[in-house]
Amino acid sequence: MKTGEAYVLGLDYGSDSCRAVLIDAACGREAGVSVQYYPRWAKGLYCDPPNNKFRQHPQDYLDVLEAAVREAAARAGKDAVSKLRGIAIDTTGSTPCAVDGGGLPLALKKEFAENPAAMFVLWKDHSALAEAEKINRLAGTWGGTDYTRFEGGVYSAEWFWAKIMHIFTEDEGIAQAAASFVEHCDWMTALLTGTRDLKSIKRSRCAMGHKAMWHADWGYPQAEFLSLLDRRLVKIRESLGTETYTSDKAAGELSAEWAERLGIPAGIPVAVGAYDAHMGAVGGGVKPGSLVKVIGTSTCDMIVGPRPAGEETLVKGICGQVDGSIIPGMIGYEAGQSSFGDVYAWFKQLLMWPLEGGRLKEGINGVEGIAGSWDKITEGISQKLIPLLEKEAEAIDPGRSGIVALDWFNGRRTPKADQSLKGAVAGLALGTDAVRFYRALVEATAFGARAIVECFKEQGVEVREIIGVGGVARKSSLVMQILADVLNMPLSVPAGDQAVALGAAMFAAVAAGLYPDIPAAQRALCPPVEKIYTPNAGRKELYDALYDQYRKLGAFAESKGKFPG
Amino acid sequence: MKTGEAYVLGLDYGSDSCRAVLIDAACGREAGVSVQYYPRWAKGLYCDPPNNKFRQHPQDYLDVLEAAVREAAARAGKDAVSKLRGIAIDTTGSTPCAVDGGGLPLALKKEFAENPAAMFVLWKDHSALAEAEKINRLAGTWGGTDYTRFEGGVYSAEWFWAKIMHIFTEDEGIAQAAASFVEHCDWMTALLTGTRDLKSIKRSRCAMGHKAMWHADWGYPQAEFLSLLDRRLVKIRESLGTETYTSDKAAGELSAEWAERLGIPAGIPVAVGAYDAHMGAVGGGVKPGSLVKVIGTSTCDMIVGPRPAGEETLVKGICGQVDGSIIPGMIGYEAGQSSFGDVYAWFKQLLMWPLEGGRLKEGINGVEGIAGSWDKITEGISQKLIPLLEKEAEAIDPGRSGIVALDWFNGRRTPKADQSLKGAVAGLALGTDAVRFYRALVEATAFGARAIVECFKEQGVEVREIIGVGGVARKSSLVMQILADVLNMPLSVPAGDQAVALGAAMFAAVAAGLYPDIPAAQRALCPPVEKIYTPNAGRKELYDALYDQYRKLGAFAESKGKFPG
Repeated sequence: MKTGEAYVLGLDYGSDSCRAVLIDAACGREAGVSVQYYPRWAKGLYCDPPNNKFRQHPQDYLDVLEAAVREAAARAGKDAVSKLRGIAIDTTGSTPCAVDGGGLPLALKKEFAENPAAMFVLWKDHSALAEAEKINRLAGTWGGTDYTRFEGGVYSAEWFWAKIMHIFTEDEGIAQAAASFVEHCDWMTALLTGTRDLKSIKRSRCAMGHKAMWHADWGYPQAEFLSLLDRRLVKIRESLGTETYTSDKAAGELSAEWAERLGIPAGIPVAVGAYDAHMGAVGGGVKPGSLVKVIGTSTCDMIVGPRPAGEETLVKGICGQVDGSIIPGMIGYEAGQSSFGDVYAWFKQLLMWPLEGGRLKEGINGVEGIAGSWDKITEGISQKLIPLLEKEAEAIDPGRSGIVALDWFNGRRTPKADQSLKGAVAGLALGTDAVRFYRALVEATAFGARAIVECFKEQGVEVREIIGVGGVARKSSLVMQILADVLNMPLSVPAGDQAVALGAAMFAAVAAGLYPDIPAAQRALCPPVEKIYTPNAGRKELYDALYDQYRKLGAFAESKGKFPG
Repeated sequence: MKTGEAYVLGLDYGSDSCRAVLIDAACGREAGVSVQYYPRWAKGLYCDPPNNKFRQHPQDYLDVLEAAVREAAARAGKDAVSKLRGIAIDTTGSTPCAVDGGGLPLALKKEFAENPAAMFVLWKDHSALAEAEKINRLAGTWGGTDYTRFEGGVYSAEWFWAKIMHIFTEDEGIAQAAASFVEHCDWMTALLTGTRDLKSIKRSRCAMGHKAMWHADWGYPQAEFLSLLDRRLVKIRESLGTETYTSDKAAGELSAEWAERLGIPAGIPVAVGAYDAHMGAVGGGVKPGSLVKVIGTSTCDMIVGPRPAGEETLVKGICGQVDGSIIPGMIGYEAGQSSFGDVYAWFKQLLMWPLEGGRLKEGINGVEGIAGSWDKITEGISQKLIPLLEKEAEAIDPGRSGIVALDWFNGRRTPKADQSLKGAVAGLALGTDAVRFYRALVEATAFGARAIVECFKEQGVEVREIIGVGGVARKSSLVMQILADVLNMPLSVPAGDQAVALGAAMFAAVAAGLYPDIPAAQRALCPPVEKIYTPNAGRKELYDALYDQYRKLGAFAESKGKFPG
């Protein structure tokens, strides 16, 4: 294949916006990009953040779709659009929605248009804590198969079945109207391929395998198990069919209706959907031994390993292992840190306390015109704070601060999920300044990353290098160098800001038959490495000692039980 | 005695300044007060803070003496001055200085005038860490009396013999020129009484008992013991005489020379000197069961108990127990927290980081005139920060923050001195704001106070109430209420800002024969209680649980060993 011969489209639905990226299928060059923000979500509709309730209206997804694809296509030009050969879509997940018998999200029906229970339940919605607890209790005691065994051993409130159970409790009307539930990624493919029969929806291996306890050994959990949780789940189970599909296969062809609406060729294959982190791992260049870490406010840590000849080794404490969830033909492993960039943002927020909310504005008398300039001052400082902390923290020798911190400010996802855990900082002295405090927080997030890598390695999953993608990986050389040092492992950052949409485009290319498989598409399309962070050998011993302190502080936090209040 | 009949003078030499307070000996009314700051110290001369080296020039003490007494006297009026009946002086300690054969501090001699080794080694000077270690090692192993047994079992780098050993190492010339060493409080009395013979200097029971291992059972440590540390100490030992004196006795009479210089009557008694915390405890109203807590950047916790009929019970982990060091005829116990207000100041400093040092000043573009107003803005915020944090922290339910902190930001003085320990904060979440963080720090300092009280109570020293004196006690109702709640004990704050100088004046009154003893002087002269903080019964259970967490966090910090770096 020569450049300019064929194009593919990756659609990446993130938490706040949708990115459409049209790439040259021969070389991976970005021919056209567009980013569109969800209008209702941007206004904060249908959410209740203090109670961790986050819903997204399906109309938001539709509103951005046409705009994103049309804009990316316009930028790529008519020639490229005429040579478009395939589409693949990734979304957040687990983000399921109640649908009617034709696969239509209930919130798109007039009678449920403003009902949050009829909308997509966003991945980070934590309404279903009680339901998850019920699932875990039953799974461990009911006497049959422990369906959580390929999901790290613990079922989360953020996942498919727990969320369905919660919606049933939240709204009786929706419980009755729901013929099934579909993940956001599966709804998008059903929509574009014109699939209106529930059983024909191609359910994503990635989504169902990691979050709905589907496994080739047993399919979905038995009806008996589900009925012990809630009888109404049995009907949902039946609506799902029995099979799941990897994203190198087409879910169907782009319908004439949507080809028209999007201004692209009809009949081209639409790949089976998957989650953003999983397609992002492919876009980042995941392969056996190379862990892709998507680093933003939190992290997703994705790696693959060979499919075993005999029985599959269970890796304890991670978010699941699914055959084909990342690269078809290999076991995909998912892990992650509940907070990463959010820990730095927390510290910034702490330091901004005196300035924000105008709480001291009135108190600064005698400075002429200060009241009118306050917001500008606050904004200016806010923007410059983290870059300045980074710069000064870079100049400090590692460990010289004498501080060790624990990164569990938003609980711990892996290893061994426990959302009740908290962060900590030890080794504070009167001389501890903001820069030293900040560096300790950066080191803590790197120690959290190391705990995940060690969890994999100790259980037989090989990790030789880290590939960093996402905002923090591209922006902070301080964080990346500390990560490389703490992990004592090279860390590479690929060029480009669209690893996730690029990964989706690779699946589109394989589904369209342009490459025989994902590894071949990766070889051709992965962007070059822009920067490699090499571990500083002289820091190994010190960071080993500090990591040991980190683990002791962690053991203390785990053993002391919950704090009162 | 009627009011207006007799007056006494208390001179209080603190770390930065000297306060002279002239009071009516019948009722305690302040007739005249003056505060004078040490001029060389204010310029930072002779100190090396990063290395914890703090020296004070004897000329600083002389410069402020005349000004302070003359100003206080002028304010009191001629009639009061003519009726002045006695003087007592307290100083910081252990603050010793090398002197010549006539008791003259070597820095007052031309050849040593600029030599820090010839000056007073301030209480907080930590140069003598290695020497203290040597003393502790020998005391525990040499086979003779363990001379640290009445000093809590550990000899500190902040104390008399360690400092002398260090000066010997620091400067050979001073080692040869030093005929003796005198504590600041003892030099002041020798000076005012015209004592120029080393053996006639009345050494303070408080100073020598708490810091020089003097005890009635053995006097000073044997020459054999001291010569194993440094042969040159034997000469110093001989210069000290064998006796020590309580401060209810006169060290001598005010010399004609100094009466002339100060403008007060010659021949009036000058009481034996003592440390500020000890005289401050008397001024605060210490008595059996009532612990006086002097609360500032750090704390001194002083209490007295009856002299036992049989053998004295040793209280482990405190800073010493000395017969007559606080109230003659009773055992005086000393303890303290290495940082208290300093912990809050640390947090303020952390939050001020973005604003201080002008580090972001240049970055705030587009705000007109901001550069010129920067210092005013910073100053304004700095002043309002702690009051605002206090106000908002008062509104939070105790323990609701979910945070537990450790107050050892400057090491731990008592219980069980260990200056290598550090502070910590656990239970941090993304929602933890500055107010919750601050409240946890306040609770931590209160837990530190509770640990001292429990240390006393568990070892048989009765504590029924706390009397709070010092800056923090007078300024912060939030801190005082939390202290009362955490200790589950009433906490009273006496009126007036001069508890320490007032305590000195009480000793002057007893030395002058105006009262038979210190308790009688206290009954007549202690100021009324201005405010009583009553423990909130509803918080006992919660604070007990939080205190338990505090102890667990502390046990972790103790067990994990030192952090690298």
